[in-house]
Amino acid sequence: MPDARHFPPAPPLTLAEVAALVGASGEGAALITGTAPLALAGPGDVTFLTDRSFLPTLPDCRAAAVLITADLAAKAPPGGPERLIVANPKLAYARLAARFYPSHAPDGQTHPTAQIAPDATIGPGCQIDAFVVIGAGVSLGANSHIGAGSVIGAHVTIGPGARIGPHVTLSHATLGAGVVLLPGVRIGQPGFGYVPGPVGLEPLPQLGLVQIGDWVEIGANSMIDRGPAEDTVIGLGTKIDNGVHVGHGVRIGAHCVIVALTGISGSVTIGDGAMIGGQVGVADHVTIGAGAQVVSQSGLMRDVPPGAKVGGTPARDVRDWFAETALLARLREGRRDKTR
Amino acid sequence: MPDARHFPPAPPLTLAEVAALVGASGEGAALITGTAPLALAGPGDVTFLTDRSFLPTLPDCRAAAVLITADLAAKAPPGGPERLIVANPKLAYARLAARFYPSHAPDGQTHPTAQIAPDATIGPGCQIDAFVVIGAGVSLGANSHIGAGSVIGAHVTIGPGARIGPHVTLSHATLGAGVVLLPGVRIGQPGFGYVPGPVGLEPLPQLGLVQIGDWVEIGANSMIDRGPAEDTVIGLGTKIDNGVHVGHGVRIGAHCVIVALTGISGSVTIGDGAMIGGQVGVADHVTIGAGAQVVSQSGLMRDVPPGAKVGGTPARDVRDWFAETALLARLREGRRDKTR
Amino acid sequence: MPDARHFPPAPPLTLAEVAALVGASGEGAALITGTAPLALAGPGDVTFLTDRSFLPTLPDCRAAAVLITADLAAKAPPGGPERLIVANPKLAYARLAARFYPSHAPDGQTHPTAQIAPDATIGPGCQIDAFVVIGAGVSLGANSHIGAGSVIGAHVTIGPGARIGPHVTLSHATLGAGVVLLPGVRIGQPGFGYVPGPVGLEPLPQLGLVQIGDWVEIGANSMIDRGPAEDTVIGLGTKIDNGVHVGHGVRIGAHCVIVALTGISGSVTIGDGAMIGGQVGVADHVTIGAGAQVVSQSGLMRDVPPGAKVGGTPARDVRDWFAETALLARLREGRRDKTR
Repeated sequence: MPDARHFPPAPPLTLAEVAALVGASGEGAALITGTAPLALAGPGDVTFLTDRSFLPTLPDCRAAAVLITADLAAKAPPGGPERLIVANPKLAYARLAARFYPSHAPDGQTHPTAQIAPDATIGPGCQIDAFVVIGAGVSLGANSHIGAGSVIGAHVTIGPGARIGPHVTLSHATLGAGVVLLPGVRIGQPGFGYVPGPVGLEPLPQLGLVQIGDWVEIGANSMIDRGPAEDTVIGLGTKIDNGVHVGHGVRIGAHCVIVALTGISGSVTIGDGAMIGGQVGVADHVTIGAGAQVVSQSGLMRDVPPGAKVGGTPARDVRDWFAETALLARLREGRRDKTR
Repeated sequence: MPDARHFPPAPPLTLAEVAALVGASGEGAALITGTAPLALAGPGDVTFLTDRSFLPTLPDCRAAAVLITADLAAKAPPGGPERLIVANPKLAYARLAARFYPSHAPDGQTHPTAQIAPDATIGPGCQIDAFVVIGAGVSLGANSHIGAGSVIGAHVTIGPGARIGPHVTLSHATLGAGVVLLPGVRIGQPGFGYVPGPVGLEPLPQLGLVQIGDWVEIGANSMIDRGPAEDTVIGLGTKIDNGVHVGHGVRIGAHCVIVALTGISGSVTIGDGAMIGGQVGVADHVTIGAGAQVVSQSGLMRDVPPGAKVGGTPARDVRDWFAETALLARLREGRRDKTR
Repeated sequence: MPDARHFPPAPPLTLAEVAALVGASGEGAALITGTAPLALAGPGDVTFLTDRSFLPTLPDCRAAAVLITADLAAKAPPGGPERLIVANPKLAYARLAARFYPSHAPDGQTHPTAQIAPDATIGPGCQIDAFVVIGAGVSLGANSHIGAGSVIGAHVTIGPGARIGPHVTLSHATLGAGVVLLPGVRIGQPGFGYVPGPVGLEPLPQLGLVQIGDWVEIGANSMIDRGPAEDTVIGLGTKIDNGVHVGHGVRIGAHCVIVALTGISGSVTIGDGAMIGGQVGVADHVTIGAGAQVVSQSGLMRDVPPGAKVGGTPARDVRDWFAETALLARLREGRRDKTR
């Protein structure tokens, strides 16, 4: 059960109400007070089961109800929680969890220490915490929350429903609706571009902006640079983990996933729905096709076709990479045998 | 000699007093004013020697005294600094350095700009710097120091003697005694968990906490996420370097070492005393056994047994990894010979 | 054309004035209003061309003038923008871009919320933004800009013309002239050094400083640690990208380039003009020679000679690394052929 001080629960629902919420058939007045994964669920909880290897544990599960597909329910041993048959148990679970432990809504208050430029436009219902700085000409959409100490540079535009954590810095950027930025995100600083001159490297002015699409979420301490001319763009619904670097002029499509500590060099293009693992490196000007999958720690030096799955450094078809790894191990073992 | 403005020295000690502090026999009223490594030590310094290749330089060392094992002292040429025989010279040196250049103790003052919730509990002797934000229900142990601009979210608990640098953000967390967080550490933000839905990825609510054990130290800009259900846990005395990512629900044991820029994916378990190099990546749900050692830049996709030493991507026994690297080089050389 | 709210343009120049600025011959009273790359340039723009594959597009380019070498101009088809013949078109372009879209100059104001120690020395013309903290004995050179919320620790020295972004933390450091630090940079925190003791790891006091040379630029969220005795040094004009970790006592020469997410372990030495790619890892005490080039994601365990070009983990001559990669792929293909 989540810690009630950190995650205060919403009022309980009856089992029938929960079933109605997720579109399942289910009856009864039993009170549901929360959600929990299979192994931790107690008598007032709804849980979910998607991995068939856990089916044998279901009779012993103490949850009041389990979200499960019809297919798996048919294979489950009798007993245990009431079944709530849904097409996508994990999604139903995520939504119920959000219902039972709602995240903090903006309180509509501006802390008296916040420094807000007189010509900034702040939508209704926003919460602006202590020591926030909002620059000239900023536009902040309704019901947004700006965490303590964040600095929003001049002329930045933020859509409604933004959740900006503490200690974020934003400049030269436009953000869509429902954007989530975790603490320490850096957006809009100049990209890394220099030209050799007679006495050293001289900066190439970075005159583009950063465009963050609706429902984008970006993890703690990630860094999104602006570029010299074309905008850096992150598409609708893309999710970026902690500590990711996105270079100048990168264009990332919609609904991509980029895992922690990955670095995307300047002018890279990433198609919709690509999934990029952690600690991946992408060389500049590379194009990654829509729906491509990149194994963690890969190094991409060439374009990746749509739908391809690549791994290794330099990155290649993931089957080839695995085959080469296995081949090298066999060669080593053979060599060792000969020397015995 | 350390810069006296940045590291103001404590009063000198006699050589006899220094010897007594480290449990060595040593006499004399010579004044010791500080510590310095072998190559930099001057007449008022204590130094140490643990690497036998430096023994020939000892007669020329200008330090007043050298911390050394009995074994090495017996092999040292005559002359040079007075010997202080100890079992662990580097440890004795570290403690003397802390004695001669004591770190800044909390001054017991709260800066007038700090914003502290009325129901927060602040122990005696704490120093709270400018622009700190401390949320509702926070408990801060005695003699802690919170650096400028740090934001402590509601209901966070911090043990006594904490040293929290500037610009740290903490939420949904419990910290033990003597915890050190360097600038820009991010603790307690939601882990990276989403469920595909009909129009995009939907967040899985992250309802666990982060538990940081006693004497844990975490480097600048490192990121420790909370998880969906089980707590993210970092055990007693573990030390984490800069820019490290620790995902949702990770469990790290006691006295581990994790070097800079490493990424630990969700639900990983790491046993006591494991040593993990820099830029290592660990896939989710992997278990690393107690005392295991992981070479820098390795990629762990499978469990690592206790005490094992692994390297490469995918990680394997470090001897196999080195052998494969060498074998491939030999094959390349052979191939080149044939084509000449 | 850059967004005029974010990048307000300076007054136009005539083509003759632009030519004079870059040392080209060129005449005419046509008004030049800005700069833009080849594909985006409009009638009032100056552009540049350095890649001969774009020569055929030149007649269709709408720019007023193009910066180009005499060699390429001789090969260009007729028509299109007026030629401005210069030895280094990209450098001339960068300087013109800085002329047309000048970066924000310090406004000479100190925000009333800034907390500045009474004995700090602030040069003339500085801009100090909201919620900045400047400690005892700090010296800040003329015409510097300290961004919102940055924390400058006691006795830090900063040369003239510094541009310190928001949310930077600085301690135990000396910075030269014209240093640029992007948001979230961490400088001067203690390096990662511990000594095993009877009940756990004990910190080795970190008593050195960080010295940042003139014209050094450091990217967002990068981390530069101080060391136990010798200073961490970054030489004149070196440029460091986002999210880079520089460990205790590292010595980096002049005019080096270090790309994002690279980690440099303690006591590494890097010679002048070295170029280090992204996500590179360098083991402690390694020496990288002047002018060496290190491919992204390499892992350096041994010294690199001056001028060498290395890649892979463990890093080796880049030609050998590529040859080994190709050889392994051929072996895999051969093996697959046999099994068919």
